[in-house]
Amino acid sequence: MASSAGERLSVLQRHLSCPGREGPRRGTAGHWQPAAASSPSPKDTAGAPSLPRRRQEVLKWNGWGYKDSKFVVHKEDGYHVSFTGNRYKIGNMVLPHFASWVKETLGVDFEDCQPPQPPPQPHQIPQPILHPGLLEEVRALGLSHSLEGEDRLFRAHGHTLAEIFTLREGMFPRIPDLVVWPDGHKQVEKMVELASRHQVVLIPFGGGTSVSGALLCPEEEGRMIISLDTSQMNSILWVDEKNLTARIEAGIIGQDLERQLRARGYTSGHEPDSYEFSSLGGWVATRASGMKKNIYGNIEDLVVQVKVVTPRGTVERYAAGPRLSAGPDIQHFIMGSEGTFGVVTEVTLKIRPLPPVVRYGSIAFPDFSAGVRCMREVALQRCQPASIRLMDNQQFRFGHALKPPTGLMGLLVDGLKKVYITRIRGFDVNKMCVATLLFEGSEQEVTAQENRLYSIALSSGGVPAGAANGERGYMLTFVIAYIRDLGFDYGIVAESFETSVPWDRVYSLCHNVKHRITSECKERGIRHSFVTCRVTQTYDAGACVYFYFAFNYRGLSDPVHVYEEIEGNARNEILACGGSISHHHGVGKVRRQWMNQTVSAPGLGALRAVKEYFDPENIFANGNLL
Amino acid sequence: MASSAGERLSVLQRHLSCPGREGPRRGTAGHWQPAAASSPSPKDTAGAPSLPRRRQEVLKWNGWGYKDSKFVVHKEDGYHVSFTGNRYKIGNMVLPHFASWVKETLGVDFEDCQPPQPPPQPHQIPQPILHPGLLEEVRALGLSHSLEGEDRLFRAHGHTLAEIFTLREGMFPRIPDLVVWPDGHKQVEKMVELASRHQVVLIPFGGGTSVSGALLCPEEEGRMIISLDTSQMNSILWVDEKNLTARIEAGIIGQDLERQLRARGYTSGHEPDSYEFSSLGGWVATRASGMKKNIYGNIEDLVVQVKVVTPRGTVERYAAGPRLSAGPDIQHFIMGSEGTFGVVTEVTLKIRPLPPVVRYGSIAFPDFSAGVRCMREVALQRCQPASIRLMDNQQFRFGHALKPPTGLMGLLVDGLKKVYITRIRGFDVNKMCVATLLFEGSEQEVTAQENRLYSIALSSGGVPAGAANGERGYMLTFVIAYIRDLGFDYGIVAESFETSVPWDRVYSLCHNVKHRITSECKERGIRHSFVTCRVTQTYDAGACVYFYFAFNYRGLSDPVHVYEEIEGNARNEILACGGSISHHHGVGKVRRQWMNQTVSAPGLGALRAVKEYFDPENIFANGNLL
Repeated sequence: MASSAGERLSVLQRHLSCPGREGPRRGTAGHWQPAAASSPSPKDTAGAPSLPRRRQEVLKWNGWGYKDSKFVVHKEDGYHVSFTGNRYKIGNMVLPHFASWVKETLGVDFEDCQPPQPPPQPHQIPQPILHPGLLEEVRALGLSHSLEGEDRLFRAHGHTLAEIFTLREGMFPRIPDLVVWPDGHKQVEKMVELASRHQVVLIPFGGGTSVSGALLCPEEEGRMIISLDTSQMNSILWVDEKNLTARIEAGIIGQDLERQLRARGYTSGHEPDSYEFSSLGGWVATRASGMKKNIYGNIEDLVVQVKVVTPRGTVERYAAGPRLSAGPDIQHFIMGSEGTFGVVTEVTLKIRPLPPVVRYGSIAFPDFSAGVRCMREVALQRCQPASIRLMDNQQFRFGHALKPPTGLMGLLVDGLKKVYITRIRGFDVNKMCVATLLFEGSEQEVTAQENRLYSIALSSGGVPAGAANGERGYMLTFVIAYIRDLGFDYGIVAESFETSVPWDRVYSLCHNVKHRITSECKERGIRHSFVTCRVTQTYDAGACVYFYFAFNYRGLSDPVHVYEEIEGNARNEILACGGSISHHHGVGKVRRQWMNQTVSAPGLGALRAVKEYFDPENIFANGNLL
Repeated sequence: MASSAGERLSVLQRHLSCPGREGPRRGTAGHWQPAAASSPSPKDTAGAPSLPRRRQEVLKWNGWGYKDSKFVVHKEDGYHVSFTGNRYKIGNMVLPHFASWVKETLGVDFEDCQPPQPPPQPHQIPQPILHPGLLEEVRALGLSHSLEGEDRLFRAHGHTLAEIFTLREGMFPRIPDLVVWPDGHKQVEKMVELASRHQVVLIPFGGGTSVSGALLCPEEEGRMIISLDTSQMNSILWVDEKNLTARIEAGIIGQDLERQLRARGYTSGHEPDSYEFSSLGGWVATRASGMKKNIYGNIEDLVVQVKVVTPRGTVERYAAGPRLSAGPDIQHFIMGSEGTFGVVTEVTLKIRPLPPVVRYGSIAFPDFSAGVRCMREVALQRCQPASIRLMDNQQFRFGHALKPPTGLMGLLVDGLKKVYITRIRGFDVNKMCVATLLFEGSEQEVTAQENRLYSIALSSGGVPAGAANGERGYMLTFVIAYIRDLGFDYGIVAESFETSVPWDRVYSLCHNVKHRITSECKERGIRHSFVTCRVTQTYDAGACVYFYFAFNYRGLSDPVHVYEEIEGNARNEILACGGSISHHHGVGKVRRQWMNQTVSAPGLGALRAVKEYFDPENIFANGNLL
C-alpha cells in the first residue's frame, strides 16, 4: 500500500483549513542569515494558520481537539457510537463494536444510561487581577490582548485528566488575568521588559496540549498573571535549501509547519502525537519526541539554533555550525525548561526533502513478549523504520473495537487474515499483539527496510499483518485522544502517561505497572478498569513505553483524586522497575516530586541556579520543575 | 582490502603493551546496576593499562606521544627522514620524499642545518607551594601522591604549540604543587572535600592531550594547586550485554578502553585522533568527537550516564532510560565543562558489537570544490560510512611526501594509478584532492555503502583510488602529531585548529582562512609557510573543518607570539565566514575571548551561574571557558 508523499498524511490533509489571520510576512531574521535563504511568498496560501486567534471558535473549550470532532452515542437499532465530522478517517462512521467493548471492559451499558447533559458552559470565571498602569502600557506597545473570561480560561490549563475534569465540573482557583498575543520576537522582548518592571507573572502558552499541569497558574500567586500566547508568531522566516534548515517563529503549530514545508517539498519530520495542535516553542520547552524520530530525531536532534527571551536578556547560541565544543551546550539549558526561564521566540530547525515513498505495515505476534523481543532485535540491528510501535493485547483489542463496518470484501479479507493468524498460526486473540510500522525513503530503501524488518519479525515468531492495520494504528493515535471526553459523560476517567526504560526491563516494567494499577483499582473497590501499553520509541539502550489507563468511577466521590493516587503509585512502580519519570511529556507540576531522585540534589540545585540567574524575580512563575 | 574486526586497528594493535599497575578489579558500581551486568575477570590481561603511573617513563616529557616514536633526520646517501620504533606502520622506515618536501615547502635544507641538540632536560622547576596540614591529610587518606618536579611538570600543560615551546625553551610561571592519583570515585569525593576545606585548587588531569590551554595553571593563582590525575581510575566496572552499555571509570584512556571492550566482542566506537592517550573523562569534559561518529555518534550521543564530583556534592542523573524529558538535561551541564565544575569519575557508555567487516577506501577528485560537493551530497543522502574525510591538495601532497619506499609492484601499481588519474582523467596533481573512507558493518552493508558512495563520487567527478590510500590516511592521523617535534629542531612551528560550519560556507571558509593565513605570514616577512585543511566530519547541516598550519620562523624573535597572532586572525576569519570557535577541541583559555559572541552574554552568564553554584569557592580554578 504505497502512497506518494503528497498523498500521505491523509489524517492531516483532511483537516479543513480554518479562518485566521492573514497578513504580509515579516522579514525579521535571526543573527545568522543564510546566504541562500528564501522567504515564503506573501500569497502562499499554505501559510494561513489553521486556527483562529480565538481558538475556542474552532476548538473545544472543555475537551480535546476540534469542536466538530467527537465520539457520540446514538440509538438506532440498539445503542451505537460514532465519530462526528470529516477531519479524520473514522469521521461520520458508526463503530459497531465499540458499545459492546465499553460494556464489557468498563461496565457501562449505554442502554441503562441517561443521555448526557448538553455540554456545560464555563461558569464562575474569576475577575482579573489588574496591575495598575500595566494595561495602558500594553496598549501603548500595540500588543494584541484580551481580558475576556473565555480567552483567559482557555489558557488556564493543559489536558491532564484533573484539568479537564475541573473545566467540566468547577473552576480553577486561579486563571490568567490577561492574555497577550505578541506578533514576534521584538514584542516578546518588550513584554518581558514590561513584566519585569511591573513585577507581574508571565506564563508562555503555545499549543496548550501539556499533560503535566505545566500551564496551571499556581494557586498562591498573588501577582497579576499574564498568559503570553505565542500563536501569532507563526511564520517560517526563511528556508535555507543549501543547508537544509529553516528559521521559524516558535508559535507555529505542527500541522501548519508541516503544511508550509510540504508545499515547498520539505518536512521537519517532527510528529509528536499532539502535533495537530502543539507548537514548536512547546516542543523545545518540553523536549518533545516525534513518532518518526528514527529518521528525523527528537527535538534536541532537530534544533540547530534557538532564541529565548529571558528577564536577563535574549539568549542565543549564535554559531550556526552543526556541532560545537564551546562549553556546556546552552541550548540544552533551554530545552526542557518548561517556560520557567523565558519565552522561546525563534528556532532554526533541520528540514529534509520529502521522502519519495511512504508505506505502512504491521506485524502480529503471538504475545507481548515476542513483540518486545522483536523490537529489541530491530533496535540492536539499528534497522528501525521511520516509526515502529508495539501495542499490547489490550490495545490490539481496543483497536478492533474502534473498527468501522467493513464491506463484503473487507469482511472476507479480515476473515481470511483472522483464520490465518488464529487458526493456522494458532495465535490466541486474548494474548496476541501487533506492531505498526511506517517506512519512508526511496522505493529501494523502503523495500530493503521492509525485507529486513519482516525477516526479523518472522524469526521472533511474528507474522506480517498488512499495511491497512498499520495505517489505521497511526490514524487512531490522533482519534484516541478524543475518547476521554465521551468517557466523562458516562462516569469514566482516563489518562495516559509514559516512561523510558532500559531494554532488559521493558517487558517486566509493562507487566508490573499494569498489574500494580489493576491491584490498586481493586483495593479501592473499582470494579471496571482498563490499562494498556505500547512501546512507542526504540533506542540503542532502551525504549519508551506509553500507558493508557481508564476506570469506571461509579461510587467514588472524588475520582480525580483516586486517579492521581493510583497514577502516583504506578509511577513509583515505574521507578522501581528502572523506568524514568518521563520520556517526553515533561515534568510540569505533576511529576516535580520525583525530580530530586532523577537528577540528584546537586543536579536540581544547578537547574535552580540557572533559573535564578535568568529570572531572579521569578517573572516566569508557572512553578514547573523546581 | 577487507580485514576482520580483530585484525583491524593495526595502528593500535602495534602498540606494545607497557608496564603498569595490575591489581584486582574493584567492584564499585553506580546507583544503577543492571540485572545482567558482568564484571571483567581479574585475570583479564586485556585489562592492564598501557601507560605506567609515571607516564614520563614511556611518553615524552616535552613533546608528543611515545618516547620511542619520533621523526629523525639521518645522513646516508644524502639527508633522509625516518620514523623510529615499531608502534606505527611507518615505523623504522625511511621516508625518501620527505626531506625534499620540507625543503621546498618550508625552506629547510637539512644539509645546511646543524644536527639538533640533544633534547633539553627540564630546568628551573619551581618549588611547590604547600598548604599547611594538607599533605598530612592526603597521606592519612591513603591517596597516592607525588611532589616530584617531573611528575608536576608533566601535568602542567597540554599540547598547544605555546605549551610545548615553553617546555623546550623555558618554564611555566606556575605548575601544580602536588599530584594525587585517586583510585576511584570515593577517593575523589574525599579529595574534593579536602580541597574545599583547605581552600586549595584542584585541576583534573586525564590524558593530558588538551590543545586549548585547558591544563595550564593560571599564573596569578596564589593558592596551592593540586593536579588530580585520574589515570588510576581505569576499570570497566561492568558490561551490560542486554542493554549494550558499560560502566567505566573516567580515567581510562581510549586505547585501553577499546582493547578491553574488543576482548569481549564490543567497541565504544569512539576514536578521536588523540585516543591513544586521551581519557574518557576528558572526552566528556571537552565534548569530544570521534572519527567514526557517523556510526557511533559523538560523545554526547554515547554517554548514557555520567557521575561528577563537585564541591556541592556528586551530580548524577540516576535514570538509566535511554532518553528523558525531566527538565534541561543536566548531563549537558557537565559535557563541555572543561574541569571547571568538578571531576568526572564514572561514565555509562553505549557499546556496540564489533562489526564483522571493516574496509577502507579512497576517492580522488580533480579539485577541492568537487570533493566538497561530493561530501555535501553524501551528507544530504545520509549515506556516510563510519568515516569520510576530505583532504585538500596540500594535504594530499603532504601525504605523498610521507610515503615509504614502495617495492617494484608498489611502484607499478602507483604508477598505473597515477597514469590513470593524471593522464587519462586529466587531474592536475597540484589541484587534485583525496577523500579517505572507512566502512564498517556486515559484508552486505559495507558493499551496499561502497556502491552508493562510489556512485555519488563518480557523479561529483571523483575516481575511486583504492583501499591502501584510505588506510594510510587514517594511520597518518596518528603519526602527523609527531611531526611538530621534528619541526622545533629545525626552526619550524606548527599547530592545528578546527571549526564547524554550515555546508554552503565550507568551501569559502577553507579558501578564505588559508588565504588569510598566507597573507598574514607575508605581512610578517615569513617566507615559508604551509597551511592545509581537511573536512573531517559531516552532519546534516554542515561539516567540521580541520586546519594544519606551520611556518619557518627564521628571523623572528618570538615565533609563538607571531603564531598566536596569526591563529587569532585566522579565527576571526573563521567567524566572519560563518564558522564556530570549536567543533571538538574546546575553549580552554585560548578561545575564551570568543565565548561571548558564541553563546551570547546571558548564555555565558548562565554558565557562570552554574559554575558558581557547583563551585562557589572556585576550587576548580583552571580558568577555562569563563
